[in-house]
Amino acid sequence: MGERLQKTQKSQQRREDILACARELFERKGFANTSINDIAQACGIKRENVYYYYPSRGDILIELVRPNNQVLVDGMERILAANVTPVTRLFLALQHHIRLFDRVALDTVTVGLRGIAHDDRQSVHKEVRPLYKRYEDCWVQLIEEGAQAGVLRTMDNPKLVVFAILGMCNWLTHWYDPAGPVSLDGIVDVFFNLIAGGLVDASRLKTAIGKELANLPPTLLATAHGAASA
Amino acid sequence: MGERLQKTQKSQQRREDILACARELFERKGFANTSINDIAQACGIKRENVYYYYPSRGDILIELVRPNNQVLVDGMERILAANVTPVTRLFLALQHHIRLFDRVALDTVTVGLRGIAHDDRQSVHKEVRPLYKRYEDCWVQLIEEGAQAGVLRTMDNPKLVVFAILGMCNWLTHWYDPAGPVSLDGIVDVFFNLIAGGLVDASRLKTAIGKELANLPPTLLATAHGAASA
Repeated sequence: MGERLQKTQKSQQRREDILACARELFERKGFANTSINDIAQACGIKRENVYYYYPSRGDILIELVRPNNQVLVDGMERILAANVTPVTRLFLALQHHIRLFDRVALDTVTVGLRGIAHDDRQSVHKEVRPLYKRYEDCWVQLIEEGAQAGVLRTMDNPKLVVFAILGMCNWLTHWYDPAGPVSLDGIVDVFFNLIAGGLVDASRLKTAIGKELANLPPTLLATAHGAASA
Repeated sequence: MGERLQKTQKSQQRREDILACARELFERKGFANTSINDIAQACGIKRENVYYYYPSRGDILIELVRPNNQVLVDGMERILAANVTPVTRLFLALQHHIRLFDRVALDTVTVGLRGIAHDDRQSVHKEVRPLYKRYEDCWVQLIEEGAQAGVLRTMDNPKLVVFAILGMCNWLTHWYDPAGPVSLDGIVDVFFNLIAGGLVDASRLKTAIGKELANLPPTLLATAHGAASA
């Protein structure tokens, strides 16, 4: 084996080691609480060695989540192009999102980035945002096309509906336990049942609520700044 | 004014100053990235002075979020006891949760606690968990009673449905902008429309999806560890 090839392989191995250590630390301590120093220590190498491969924590995070985010978007584009009804498409999209559920990837877009240095945040957002934006657009398209086909209801603000659905899924970061009693596919079924069918018969909806809302005691109404006093 | 009264008032004022500074820092930097030192500095007092009032960051956080959490539970109990139909109750509960939306409060239960010292986390959870558990139970009760009354659909796993609804709302932490174009009440309407009525006519649901799912090309199926290869 040529010396140059050996060197490339060693360099590749080092990169992978750094990524593996960083992923474990980000997962356990959160991105905001993990320094380049921590990563170097966990890998058993010098801080400078980490910087040689990755100029910042942000670059490591981007490298970690890029493949997952790309899979998320690619899969969604395949689902949009598939010759299925809009209801099936909705199920597949939900299943796809939840099966690819990844706490580190989610951290990138969201949780981990509050409180970190501005430069770090900028570099991560610059990389991740366009992909995530494309992903959200796919979801909006799914809902709008479903409505045009007469199968899904026409929603006033499809983008907010998408935020609701993705939020519902992404909040798994805060409660989902892989060792717990419910599988990801079990969650898909419950969530699909909720967002596809809703909790109420649509036919009851319009008449059931209007009159009551107009006649409520004020103690039931929260205001934007707290509950109304009794 | 007696000396003792003056001292009590001064002490009360100092407590409030510390809470105000801490809230601002938690909000901006996140709980995990804010030290007692930071809080002391922001208040212009000594670190020891902060410790005199609050033994840990956790105690400050508890003090900040307790009133909000109590309002959340109290309001939900009023809504459960109100003489309204289950559909109205669902709307009111959703409105109540979203109107009381508070990023610092949410941090307590969730975001901010990853990566902080074990003792801090334990003390916060011990305080906050029972209230939040009670709150979740109220939501489960709402959904189960609605089903018993024949107005809401009977859901297989009401607790997961509650996690879905609260997750949908709580994810606002990651995108809601008070200065943005959509108000909290506008979000309530869209979310209610989604979870009450669903995206699909329930009548179409059972027949529309079964046959298609059985005949999908494998490239559309994500596996638990990534997308299937094309």
